[in-house]
Amino acid sequence: MDRVFQALADGSRREIVERLVRGPASVSELARPLDMSLPAVMQHLQVLEACGLVRSEKTGRVRTCHIEPGVLRTAEEWIVGRRTVWEQRLDRLDAHLTDRPDHGSTP
Amino acid sequence: MDRVFQALADGSRREIVERLVRGPASVSELARPLDMSLPAVMQHLQVLEACGLVRSEKTGRVRTCHIEPGVLRTAEEWIVGRRTVWEQRLDRLDAHLTDRPDHGSTP
Repeated sequence: MDRVFQALADGSRREIVERLVRGPASVSELARPLDMSLPAVMQHLQVLEACGLVRSEKTGRVRTCHIEPGVLRTAEEWIVGRRTVWEQRLDRLDAHLTDRPDHGSTP
Repeated sequence: MDRVFQALADGSRREIVERLVRGPASVSELARPLDMSLPAVMQHLQVLEACGLVRSEKTGRVRTCHIEPGVLRTAEEWIVGRRTVWEQRLDRLDAHLTDRPDHGSTP
């Protein structure tokens, strides 16, 4: 989880993810809109592959990259889980403040 | 956005967020379950405050920390947005493969 959030903590890597959710792409296709050298893109891809967000395979001289949506979902689930806890707390506070008799007793 | 994901890329800081979504807490309340010195917790809090995920105020000698849910939501929206694009692409691929006549033409 550390590595997934770390990977997303960079604008260029998020741009690569934004490109790959639209479909697989070669390293040079990824490099073009980023205005970045191939070695620089490769370094970002290494970070994205190390945390499992991206996988790639080489066919001949072309390396094609794919998104790994399950890993993105893990990060999403953590954040959504925290928001849910926070919203449930707000609901309880609200119930407490309006003193609804049907709310029952919470410890 | 870089700083929000960077802040979440650490297990101790995620534990602090997990605690604060359940309600405000003092720095020493945050430190206790982490088994960490107060200065170490303060350093993590500085990272969390710098990206806006947490805010704190000092009353007398006690600093109380609160979560800032809007910032958590920004990170969530980015991830959910990417998942949505990916799922829409899968839907289009599926429609293409099953060749539904009611799907219309997509460029």
